[in-house]
Amino acid sequence: MTAETVFEWPGGAAVAVSLTFDVDADSGFLGDSPAYARRLTSLSEARFGIVRGMPRIIALLEERALDASFFVPGHTAATYPEVVPMIAETGHEIGHHGHIHLRTDKVSTAEQREELHLGFEALEAAGAPRPVGYRSPAWEMTPETLRMLIDAGFAYDSSCMGDDRPYIERYEDMSILELPVHWSLDDWPRFGWSIDLGGNVADTNELYETWLAEYRAAREGGRHVIFTMHPEVIGRASRFAVLERLVDTMLEDGDVWFARLDAVAEHVRPVLT
Amino acid sequence: MTAETVFEWPGGAAVAVSLTFDVDADSGFLGDSPAYARRLTSLSEARFGIVRGMPRIIALLEERALDASFFVPGHTAATYPEVVPMIAETGHEIGHHGHIHLRTDKVSTAEQREELHLGFEALEAAGAPRPVGYRSPAWEMTPETLRMLIDAGFAYDSSCMGDDRPYIERYEDMSILELPVHWSLDDWPRFGWSIDLGGNVADTNELYETWLAEYRAAREGGRHVIFTMHPEVIGRASRFAVLERLVDTMLEDGDVWFARLDAVAEHVRPVLT
Amino acid sequence: MTAETVFEWPGGAAVAVSLTFDVDADSGFLGDSPAYARRLTSLSEARFGIVRGMPRIIALLEERALDASFFVPGHTAATYPEVVPMIAETGHEIGHHGHIHLRTDKVSTAEQREELHLGFEALEAAGAPRPVGYRSPAWEMTPETLRMLIDAGFAYDSSCMGDDRPYIERYEDMSILELPVHWSLDDWPRFGWSIDLGGNVADTNELYETWLAEYRAAREGGRHVIFTMHPEVIGRASRFAVLERLVDTMLEDGDVWFARLDAVAEHVRPVLT
Amino acid sequence: MTAETVFEWPGGAAVAVSLTFDVDADSGFLGDSPAYARRLTSLSEARFGIVRGMPRIIALLEERALDASFFVPGHTAATYPEVVPMIAETGHEIGHHGHIHLRTDKVSTAEQREELHLGFEALEAAGAPRPVGYRSPAWEMTPETLRMLIDAGFAYDSSCMGDDRPYIERYEDMSILELPVHWSLDDWPRFGWSIDLGGNVADTNELYETWLAEYRAAREGGRHVIFTMHPEVIGRASRFAVLERLVDTMLEDGDVWFARLDAVAEHVRPVLT
Repeated sequence: MTAETVFEWPGGAAVAVSLTFDVDADSGFLGDSPAYARRLTSLSEARFGIVRGMPRIIALLEERALDASFFVPGHTAATYPEVVPMIAETGHEIGHHGHIHLRTDKVSTAEQREELHLGFEALEAAGAPRPVGYRSPAWEMTPETLRMLIDAGFAYDSSCMGDDRPYIERYEDMSILELPVHWSLDDWPRFGWSIDLGGNVADTNELYETWLAEYRAAREGGRHVIFTMHPEVIGRASRFAVLERLVDTMLEDGDVWFARLDAVAEHVRPVLT
Repeated sequence: MTAETVFEWPGGAAVAVSLTFDVDADSGFLGDSPAYARRLTSLSEARFGIVRGMPRIIALLEERALDASFFVPGHTAATYPEVVPMIAETGHEIGHHGHIHLRTDKVSTAEQREELHLGFEALEAAGAPRPVGYRSPAWEMTPETLRMLIDAGFAYDSSCMGDDRPYIERYEDMSILELPVHWSLDDWPRFGWSIDLGGNVADTNELYETWLAEYRAAREGGRHVIFTMHPEVIGRASRFAVLERLVDTMLEDGDVWFARLDAVAEHVRPVLT
Repeated sequence: MTAETVFEWPGGAAVAVSLTFDVDADSGFLGDSPAYARRLTSLSEARFGIVRGMPRIIALLEERALDASFFVPGHTAATYPEVVPMIAETGHEIGHHGHIHLRTDKVSTAEQREELHLGFEALEAAGAPRPVGYRSPAWEMTPETLRMLIDAGFAYDSSCMGDDRPYIERYEDMSILELPVHWSLDDWPRFGWSIDLGGNVADTNELYETWLAEYRAAREGGRHVIFTMHPEVIGRASRFAVLERLVDTMLEDGDVWFARLDAVAEHVRPVLT
Repeated sequence: MTAETVFEWPGGAAVAVSLTFDVDADSGFLGDSPAYARRLTSLSEARFGIVRGMPRIIALLEERALDASFFVPGHTAATYPEVVPMIAETGHEIGHHGHIHLRTDKVSTAEQREELHLGFEALEAAGAPRPVGYRSPAWEMTPETLRMLIDAGFAYDSSCMGDDRPYIERYEDMSILELPVHWSLDDWPRFGWSIDLGGNVADTNELYETWLAEYRAAREGGRHVIFTMHPEVIGRASRFAVLERLVDTMLEDGDVWFARLDAVAEHVRPVLT
């Protein structure tokens, strides 16, 4: 791939857009500290994503007939058994997102392996097809986990930020197809707030304007753009209205390929390798 | 309750709105650290809520003939004896908000029990009717406190975030009627700032737009929405003007049930249990 | 004073406005840690307030013929001997702001006494009239410092936040005339940013809108409002343009008493005591 | 120089504008902690600046025929050998920015010397002309590094904030021509966000409005203004569009001297010394 590489999208679409959702639920808190096990308010905030966020997301995708990708930690699949079927039965992708949302760079190699293993097990037990895509919890990736992803035969990773187009992420002798993310294309840095850590309180319109600008730039360059959301964050009514408005603006433009990440990976692989 | 549960509101109102105020005053600082006892500036900032915030709030509610709920820590009731009568005599609800604003997850079971006990005592001594609603300080709830709430016979809790409609919060064998809150519906994450911890400085218009959007969505879905404010935060003149504007917009829409939380709890209980 | 107390301003002005400037310069850093003594960039940022901020402020006040109050730490007066004359010769008030900007609640009683003593000495050595007003560094006030202020015969303090009108701040048997401040009326929480601590990057327009709203509310209530600024913060060209716009808006309204705090203190004292 | 010093710019330009880019890449992380060596996501975010940010910047400068200055840590020059030629061959300045982005105030004198030495070596090895300008990593400057800059014969430093015009920065017996920067004229405080430290998520329009206001004020005063950017920050498509808009607004105004810092230093030196 060179700086000028341009992908051609199915059906001659002008741009490829992937709506992706990290269904962290309780695992986001519990992976940070076991003390959260008795913090019922925090756990209830996490549960909001399952109870209210997910149905809104699934309904939006269904009404607009869009495909999307969901990264589901094993712990979420096990704790909320309705989640995997809700996603799978409406035609969306289920990707691997660890088990209890442990940051790969914060734990031992053995724990990284366990996260991967338990995640696979829980997804399978919940009825998910074996995932071909991986996204690391909190988006940090170690060489050890990268090695395990390759060994496990993942078709792509979606945790790194080295380009704003699909690319090959390399480290020493390893390489993997990367579908890149970025903090500016994530709802959490804008809206995540906790009593212990604080956070930002961005205007919801900031998300609309920034994401629209990224989409417009991707469209102009014939690129692929990935938006990352969390059901408990984007699922709040005032924010979800902004997502709907954004999606509808894109639909009015037309010629958008709303694609699952596994479909994008399959489509770009011949060009990249 | 299913995902489709819709409540019918008194008088056929299109939406239920609860304006709630946590009258933390000095307790917010003192519960954090006893060192604040000699920080006269911090204490004076807290006192602003009583001296200036409360009269503005009470006057607004009276002028627009609205009911509201106030959560009053025992320490506030004891330190500012004018507070409880000011609320009770104008027809608003007084709820339990602990005693010295200790976070339940940061203290022992005995201290949690003491917080509850002292809060009851101080409210009674100040002339408040026995509260039927509870809101945990800083919105964190432990299993121990939940057990105590049930034992004490509270009609509802308003500390969790598991839905944006009234629901039953459960933990093991326990359950309580929950009237849920959220950081995005709270004035503190936007405007709370201190020399030690920093904080955000949101545009006041962000609060107006976000809360209006949440209200509009609640109205569209026939839901109940709870806004949480602090007299020392929302009571600053420039912010209070925004609250007035928000309330007046709702009043112009009409068909809004502005309700105390105890009235909401009583109303929804038959549907939820 | 009751909740309804309304002050009458000289010349029948509709509102009283005090523009106040804390000329911290190097002392803000050095009082935090002596390590700043060899951090030349931090010190140069502080110096910007003297070199560029102060001349802009003095020129604005002169062009619009406005009185203002400057709180000058002793360390600033000693380090930049041009500062005190620049203020005094153009008719503005010089208030006490400690010596090396030590937070009163962070140091011993002896150190608090030293701060007060050295501040007086340095201001006198720089040619300032003996200050009658005090503002605590970083706006924290202990009982010990309050006692010292009373013993030293200060006419007023401007460090607390217990009202948005002049009031009497009391602690045990002590009391002092208070001309109150607040973080929302300060430029630092919006714009202060450092490599070690981060901070906010507010839109300059947020300051304009919030301060205008506070001024309008004060005008409506016939109140006094105090704005606090730092020459190194508000003195940046893009922010200073906002201050000019704000002042000019008030001047267009007319009937504003732009007053030094000592003049306000003298004016309100008969009503409050 | 007095407060009234006004510079005359080449060709009678009304204002001088320097677009400067700190090409930190991996060094920003690695200089903070060696733990980043195995954090592949962080490293990939850094690499984005090289892969995507730099080509966009170089293309913009080429299309508008503008000169600019790039500060390149030695580590960047060594790790990405394409960077130095990319800059040098298109006529821009390459300045010294340390080697592995160590903050001068956090390391020993020996390490400061090593940073300077290794930076020179790596730039030379990459084919850069010997730099005449220096910018300290994270903009902190110690007396030791200042001494080394003078000994090494640097024509200017661009790390301090003591004015918003070129000036002489002095410490004890030392002095250097300073082309000053400021946090408000840097893209990082607005957009830098990490999982460990958080950060701000400013509206991209805030940068446009603030920088335009600073430019307008500089133009009005016939001054020089320096904007500092990071390829991995400003290089995101939605932000880069704002930079393009800003540059084009200036070009429409006309009479702007877009100048490399070394050219500015050479031009102002006779006036300042």
